[in-house]
Amino acid sequence: MLADDPLGARRETPHDLAPYRTAFARLDGDVNQHLVVAERDGRTVGTLHLTVIPGLSRRGAARALIEAVRVHADARGTGLGTHLIQWAIAEARRQDCVLVQLTSDATRVDAHRFYERLGFEASHLGFKMSL
Amino acid sequence: MLADDPLGARRETPHDLAPYRTAFARLDGDVNQHLVVAERDGRTVGTLHLTVIPGLSRRGAARALIEAVRVHADARGTGLGTHLIQWAIAEARRQDCVLVQLTSDATRVDAHRFYERLGFEASHLGFKMSL
Repeated sequence: MLADDPLGARRETPHDLAPYRTAFARLDGDVNQHLVVAERDGRTVGTLHLTVIPGLSRRGAARALIEAVRVHADARGTGLGTHLIQWAIAEARRQDCVLVQLTSDATRVDAHRFYERLGFEASHLGFKMSL
Repeated sequence: MLADDPLGARRETPHDLAPYRTAFARLDGDVNQHLVVAERDGRTVGTLHLTVIPGLSRRGAARALIEAVRVHADARGTGLGTHLIQWAIAEARRQDCVLVQLTSDATRVDAHRFYERLGFEASHLGFKMSL
């Protein structure tokens, strides 16, 4: 699913899983990382990565960061994306986060409308630098 | 410094440090959290919080997130902000992150120019939701 996307196609290597397995082990050992998948009929049809980030600002509040939201092409339009994001919001709240945040590529206009419908506000600019 | 800012003034409680001490202990015990301060003549004049986030996308790459960049009013215009961000970029690279990212409130126009001068691209929208 990471590669089945106009942006992801350029940056994933589905034929070589070794780096993904190493990364999974690291995620699995970190209590602040929550990698969830949605299954339907035994197939993985959605993913979401939630990170809980402790911090000092806002009276020592933790915030939650959503990354890697992906819905399989076969499962689009079924409300699965909404379900994944609502799970993440509920989990962030359960872990006493005061804020949940994500960035969305400026070209993903449909995604922007989707996040706004779910109650997010596009209050920030997201700056990135490749290393 | 968190409170000495048009946005921070509304959300910090410098008269009650207990929640900040609890949060600091949590940060201090997490190997992926790097809270740095800049000192000048024995005084803290700048802060930055760098989080390393393991992930599956981009071939299992880690990314780095910069939060809580603050420069004391007395130290503005001295290049300290640049020095803090360049430290964070170098540290992210040292930890094999492929990307460093941050969000900046849409109202902080001077900050946007600052990050662009340092090589960041405003390629994303930053969505937030208070919980």
